Amino acid sequence: MARFQRAFEGPPTFMKLETSDIQKDVDIGFIGVAFDLGVTNNPGSRHGPASIRKSSMMIRDLNHYNKIEPKKICNVADLGDVPFEHHFDIEKATNEICDYFKKIKEHNIVPLAAGGDHSISYPILKALGEEEPLALIHFDAHCDTVADLGGSAFHHGSPFRNAVLSNSIDPKSTIQIGIRGTAEPYWEFSYTSGMTVLHVEECCEMGMKKLIERIKNTVGEKKTYLSFDVDALDPAFAPGTGTPEIGGFTSREVLQIIRGLRGLNLVGADLVEVSPALDTGTITSLLGANLMFEMLCIIADSLKP
Amino acid sequence: MARFQRAFEGPPTFMKLETSDIQKDVDIGFIGVAFDLGVTNNPGSRHGPASIRKSSMMIRDLNHYNKIEPKKICNVADLGDVPFEHHFDIEKATNEICDYFKKIKEHNIVPLAAGGDHSISYPILKALGEEEPLALIHFDAHCDTVADLGGSAFHHGSPFRNAVLSNSIDPKSTIQIGIRGTAEPYWEFSYTSGMTVLHVEECCEMGMKKLIERIKNTVGEKKTYLSFDVDALDPAFAPGTGTPEIGGFTSREVLQIIRGLRGLNLVGADLVEVSPALDTGTITSLLGANLMFEMLCIIADSLKP
Amino acid sequence: MARFQRAFEGPPTFMKLETSDIQKDVDIGFIGVAFDLGVTNNPGSRHGPASIRKSSMMIRDLNHYNKIEPKKICNVADLGDVPFEHHFDIEKATNEICDYFKKIKEHNIVPLAAGGDHSISYPILKALGEEEPLALIHFDAHCDTVADLGGSAFHHGSPFRNAVLSNSIDPKSTIQIGIRGTAEPYWEFSYTSGMTVLHVEECCEMGMKKLIERIKNTVGEKKTYLSFDVDALDPAFAPGTGTPEIGGFTSREVLQIIRGLRGLNLVGADLVEVSPALDTGTITSLLGANLMFEMLCIIADSLKP
Amino acid sequence: MARFQRAFEGPPTFMKLETSDIQKDVDIGFIGVAFDLGVTNNPGSRHGPASIRKSSMMIRDLNHYNKIEPKKICNVADLGDVPFEHHFDIEKATNEICDYFKKIKEHNIVPLAAGGDHSISYPILKALGEEEPLALIHFDAHCDTVADLGGSAFHHGSPFRNAVLSNSIDPKSTIQIGIRGTAEPYWEFSYTSGMTVLHVEECCEMGMKKLIERIKNTVGEKKTYLSFDVDALDPAFAPGTGTPEIGGFTSREVLQIIRGLRGLNLVGADLVEVSPALDTGTITSLLGANLMFEMLCIIADSLKP
Amino acid sequence: MARFQRAFEGPPTFMKLETSDIQKDVDIGFIGVAFDLGVTNNPGSRHGPASIRKSSMMIRDLNHYNKIEPKKICNVADLGDVPFEHHFDIEKATNEICDYFKKIKEHNIVPLAAGGDHSISYPILKALGEEEPLALIHFDAHCDTVADLGGSAFHHGSPFRNAVLSNSIDPKSTIQIGIRGTAEPYWEFSYTSGMTVLHVEECCEMGMKKLIERIKNTVGEKKTYLSFDVDALDPAFAPGTGTPEIGGFTSREVLQIIRGLRGLNLVGADLVEVSPALDTGTITSLLGANLMFEMLCIIADSLKP
Amino acid sequence: MARFQRAFEGPPTFMKLETSDIQKDVDIGFIGVAFDLGVTNNPGSRHGPASIRKSSMMIRDLNHYNKIEPKKICNVADLGDVPFEHHFDIEKATNEICDYFKKIKEHNIVPLAAGGDHSISYPILKALGEEEPLALIHFDAHCDTVADLGGSAFHHGSPFRNAVLSNSIDPKSTIQIGIRGTAEPYWEFSYTSGMTVLHVEECCEMGMKKLIERIKNTVGEKKTYLSFDVDALDPAFAPGTGTPEIGGFTSREVLQIIRGLRGLNLVGADLVEVSPALDTGTITSLLGANLMFEMLCIIADSLKP
Repeated sequence: MARFQRAFEGPPTFMKLETSDIQKDVDIGFIGVAFDLGVTNNPGSRHGPASIRKSSMMIRDLNHYNKIEPKKICNVADLGDVPFEHHFDIEKATNEICDYFKKIKEHNIVPLAAGGDHSISYPILKALGEEEPLALIHFDAHCDTVADLGGSAFHHGSPFRNAVLSNSIDPKSTIQIGIRGTAEPYWEFSYTSGMTVLHVEECCEMGMKKLIERIKNTVGEKKTYLSFDVDALDPAFAPGTGTPEIGGFTSREVLQIIRGLRGLNLVGADLVEVSPALDTGTITSLLGANLMFEMLCIIADSLKP
Repeated sequence: MARFQRAFEGPPTFMKLETSDIQKDVDIGFIGVAFDLGVTNNPGSRHGPASIRKSSMMIRDLNHYNKIEPKKICNVADLGDVPFEHHFDIEKATNEICDYFKKIKEHNIVPLAAGGDHSISYPILKALGEEEPLALIHFDAHCDTVADLGGSAFHHGSPFRNAVLSNSIDPKSTIQIGIRGTAEPYWEFSYTSGMTVLHVEECCEMGMKKLIERIKNTVGEKKTYLSFDVDALDPAFAPGTGTPEIGGFTSREVLQIIRGLRGLNLVGADLVEVSPALDTGTITSLLGANLMFEMLCIIADSLKP
Repeated sequence: MARFQRAFEGPPTFMKLETSDIQKDVDIGFIGVAFDLGVTNNPGSRHGPASIRKSSMMIRDLNHYNKIEPKKICNVADLGDVPFEHHFDIEKATNEICDYFKKIKEHNIVPLAAGGDHSISYPILKALGEEEPLALIHFDAHCDTVADLGGSAFHHGSPFRNAVLSNSIDPKSTIQIGIRGTAEPYWEFSYTSGMTVLHVEECCEMGMKKLIERIKNTVGEKKTYLSFDVDALDPAFAPGTGTPEIGGFTSREVLQIIRGLRGLNLVGADLVEVSPALDTGTITSLLGANLMFEMLCIIADSLKP
Repeated sequence: MARFQRAFEGPPTFMKLETSDIQKDVDIGFIGVAFDLGVTNNPGSRHGPASIRKSSMMIRDLNHYNKIEPKKICNVADLGDVPFEHHFDIEKATNEICDYFKKIKEHNIVPLAAGGDHSISYPILKALGEEEPLALIHFDAHCDTVADLGGSAFHHGSPFRNAVLSNSIDPKSTIQIGIRGTAEPYWEFSYTSGMTVLHVEECCEMGMKKLIERIKNTVGEKKTYLSFDVDALDPAFAPGTGTPEIGGFTSREVLQIIRGLRGLNLVGADLVEVSPALDTGTITSLLGANLMFEMLCIIADSLKP
Repeated sequence: MARFQRAFEGPPTFMKLETSDIQKDVDIGFIGVAFDLGVTNNPGSRHGPASIRKSSMMIRDLNHYNKIEPKKICNVADLGDVPFEHHFDIEKATNEICDYFKKIKEHNIVPLAAGGDHSISYPILKALGEEEPLALIHFDAHCDTVADLGGSAFHHGSPFRNAVLSNSIDPKSTIQIGIRGTAEPYWEFSYTSGMTVLHVEECCEMGMKKLIERIKNTVGEKKTYLSFDVDALDPAFAPGTGTPEIGGFTSREVLQIIRGLRGLNLVGADLVEVSPALDTGTITSLLGANLMFEMLCIIADSLKP
Repeated sequence: MARFQRAFEGPPTFMKLETSDIQKDVDIGFIGVAFDLGVTNNPGSRHGPASIRKSSMMIRDLNHYNKIEPKKICNVADLGDVPFEHHFDIEKATNEICDYFKKIKEHNIVPLAAGGDHSISYPILKALGEEEPLALIHFDAHCDTVADLGGSAFHHGSPFRNAVLSNSIDPKSTIQIGIRGTAEPYWEFSYTSGMTVLHVEECCEMGMKKLIERIKNTVGEKKTYLSFDVDALDPAFAPGTGTPEIGGFTSREVLQIIRGLRGLNLVGADLVEVSPALDTGTITSLLGANLMFEMLCIIADSLKP
């Protein structure tokens, strides 16, 4: 029998996956996007990928709930971090991210991206939705459809506005889940463009099962991207993030929802805004790592022949 | 368009409100009561007002749930902190607080007070309930109707006993919500005086909607004061407090309850026992700030012509 | 009237109980098992007993929910810590624990043990279940029925496998509650030996009331041991533990379950895996201390003549 | 050979000393004074005694530097905490402390007191210096000779003014060491009463050896009390205190000074202002515990027949 | 006598100074530059100004060492934070800072700027050194004369290269103090341009007194700017910063040096790279606040008629 | 020019070194020994190697002080962690470590080992000193020459006793530096075997320069091993360790000493007892990483042809 490897041994890759370059035989690629120039409040999520990788070392292979074992289904690898040339220019970095994910797409790799702040979702969507607008499932406390702010259109409050304007996502097939807080007036674009906006209170009122149906009805069988901002959860569950809002989801609820998305046509996913320096212990990183594992499971499952 | 102000810019007043002296044209005044001589266990809530102000900088104007925008309805200001002459004498400080809030009342300002420990509620109630006893909605893990203890009647375990004895609140119109823990024998006064005591288990068993009805039935249309001890919440949601008790409310539950109090005749409110040095990150301060915003909303709404 | 003693005064024994040697007239004994050589990941639970004692200083005498007051029913004492001769040898230490609890049993003391890591439960069960296999109620994220690992059979992932193999517990009367995570393949023994394994999702789906019935049906009127690993709770509620898993119980749920076990024939209980250096503040220690108080209450109640 | 006891085993008394009541055969008594109503800024030092005791568990018997082994020289015991009747009244509590230490003195016990805030030193000095004014060696960032402030004369900024006014210490035989910061104008009394005030810059300029001589010259062979505020050290060495001042002593320097006081006629000592909730890890408690051990050594040495 | 104001009362301005707009009668202005887009490693110093202000609340008026009392000498005010229009563009923000400080200069205000990352020093120097190149005293672990990096010339590793190239400082009159670490090859510009580079080892070898002379010799009677990066100190003294390097100065040493600069012709100063989320407690903020007070003292002294 | 790589990018190997298997062309190998079963007090140093690697990412190539650039001199690689088969048995794990380092020695690799607790030094020394006893330079607060304790001879308090008894080191050529604390009686073996024991007070009294000479005189030109326990430093500089002792070295002092060892015949080195869960921020890991870089420099220098 193989030596039992302790969780803290060896180089911290996601789930102790092999590292790999971008190449055709990778089916699903974990990618770090260590970028946080887009934050309006507390920076630090550039350290998210390293922290999520470290916490993921405790995750083994089999999902006890849905019995999916991703590594058995397809080729999963840790592709490392997006190699930025520009560290101080949000627009140029946005282009670099986009170019990187175009290459990912060309190699038919389904990306599982760890942020970084939420601004990274726009260039990813632009790359993946180049040919046809994608459906979007978006977990967040905030709609992130703010217009230009502080002199930029590419900050972490605007990715999905940008994605609509660049025709990368279809607002009619976009659902935003867990929304709350006091910035509502900034998100008018969500409503005018036709997105489905579900405040956290509505989600809890209808219950997770109906919510899952609602999501499925919105995205249908379209190619769908899943973007998960950890501040969708309550600060008790995810304190390590830059713009926390009270009254969010519990960990059990988001586990239930993500698992409920099995069967959808997912072409990529991200988990963003984990900010280790703001975490208490590593509970937010651990949560982020596990949610990414759950995403990996349903994506792997959908790749089953 | 106005420059977008980042959350961390400028002097930390509550919700970036203008500061003001006590004057007639203020409708609702945020007031810090930086006092914690009354604690029996862990001191430190004297730093609560500063910490709540700081966390409140992230709160913008509109309540997404009930669409109330307090600043548009009435004149809200941050009145600063109660200026104590006596820093080491709980009885004299109690008198100073009472005098201060009498002045607030004379100017027809509805006070929104940030503690400080719970001992501050008695002098506030004494000032506001001078003419006729008020109804009281009290969130807490503890009844705070303990008799003299450690040589004083004015500690943080006794404010509502004192308020009954000084005829400032009507025990028949008083409801205590979220009660739990092992100090029950100390709170006999709650029962003998006729208060409604709801243990957290009963609250959860009946559900938040019935609980709201129950509260409304208890206070009716009377002039009502709302006193909120953060230890009503579970330590997972509010770790930064001096006498935490497990098994408390979640943030979503207390949001739901406070929002459900819309329409009541609120003449003042406080949120107490936030103790920053005991917090993990700033999640308790953030929670406190947001709950005070919710209180502000329903008070402002009740002032609408 | 007696002087009011502040929570932080005096030597930190469990609930300010008197200390005692092992002697016949003690009915229930709190025992620290400051041992953590069995951990596979993060050590540190050797400091659990001291930390639980410290947090328990805030707990007074009466359970507000079920009105049980243990100290009035029977003789409860803090027996101190198991005095290890072997500090570096998991097998010898296991034997020392077993010998100690045999002595406890001989004196007819019902033990309430504070871990330490979960490896301590095996030697306790071996001592208590010497004459006939016990029923077992086991709260945990993990089944802890792993085979030899890293060269040992006595690590913290295997106590209940060992207990079955030594005939100390009856797997048919064993129920494991709150199970989750990605190590399922390691726990085949739970299934093959006939234990009832309830994943956290099933528990929540059926609700706490049905879960309590299910537990009662499993253990019946047998002599029963209760073993509680704090990682049964979600990391938001119990961050201070070495192998946390997201998606666990809330504090209210476990309170409800433990209280629901009143009336069972409990011959001993433990609470394990509190690791203070990993805690945020002391919320996990506080939780552990209170859960042990709840266990104490139902055990004391069962000893009532 | 006796079983090797691990540092974290057993009840946390100072240095694992036996506990004792106040009785004649105790030569030196460790006493907790868990009181902090006198603080002007950050409270929390009421938890100092418990925290110092816990950290002291790592200290064994022999001082490697001066080869003193206190327990071999005389009877040392942990006498527990001053049992306060008054928890909320600084003046009454001050009297209680004084009464307690009078009893200590009557039993010929040399007290080694752990604060608590610095206000506790006045009632101790009043008790010990009742018959004749004592000499005083005072380590601190602040002179603590402030007049009435915030309505009280008994706060933690005034103990040594009070001690002079009550004729408990002789200002001419008083030396204050490590003084710095911006509150100098408040300490005029130190100068007018004739105390020797050494700012930290002067101390470092002259070097520790000359400083020790200077101290010895000031107190001579008089009965001398040693009062040590941990904020004498730099915040890098003692962060866990309520009014830290940058530019303080290092741990090596204070060790050297205290050891240099061997041979003096010490009748009592205290270490105050350790505030665990403000500490980083437990480095301030560990420092405090060790400095108290060093004090114990030179006091024990002076009791040698 | 005026009411004694507790440190934590009132709005946190620097040293409780009055706030003011930019106007002629202000002599020295405290200015927050809440900007950190230029960091190469850990962001977060945008929160430095708020944190320094909060910690400065404990500082009173008189410098005990040199007896300077700035508020008595001249008009000192807290001017608030630089109001950025551009939050995501390092180059535009750099211009905004420069414009702001030109206005400061036009009003004859000596600026005391709190960063923010070190990139802010370049635009300040550009504003202040517009007419003639300034002398520079620069405390830091790093020379900060790196060339373009990560696509920008304006990051926090390059301010003094930029300042030389824009003719804002005179490299021959520039002295860099405390330099260490492994990035030496990046700082060739310091040497080729003729700056005096003093590694921390040389500084300590020569002693603080000679170091002060060396500084004075370098800057002479020129108009001089003082730029202080907290990472000049050892991480034990200043842990809360983004690029710490072991082996740095102690707090006593830097106090001695800054005090030794009395008499120089200082036209402005900054203290940068305090990053509260990385701090342990608030010791770095407290240090930063006090060092800024010391700078204020010597600047105020130089303005004495 | 190559892309500037940010410190937090890429897999955390020591100093971003290439990873490698054990093979001849590696000259110096960084090795993690993630083992802490030998601790007597606080466990957790098993996480030291991962944490030191992470902190080392900020270290670039050139030592500014002695201008050594190890990667240019020889082939340095990160060899990963010792792959333990036995996770719960100190004696068997000790053998595994020994076997591993024998292989290292056979490949002529000079090992630079990151602990782990100090028990790892014995098996390393046993492997490296197999042919002839080595000289030893040992930095520590404790002599670590304790006899059997708690039932084992292989705990972290005994490595150098074991090394003498197995003839792996020559006690006459062994120097122990920084010794202090209250466990002196346990270390008699150091004296009886003829080791040179330098208490921290003696070291500081003689000064670092003489201390370096003293070290050189002790080890001469012998093959020498350097073992560095971080608790040699004061807790202000190295809080993240399991048995801290006040009064230790500063970071500048240990830098000076290690640099002073240039020219010795070093055949291996370790740095042990970094315990991340006890650290404040990451200052101890950063310190450990940098001290290992300094060791690497002098070892690389000694390999220069």
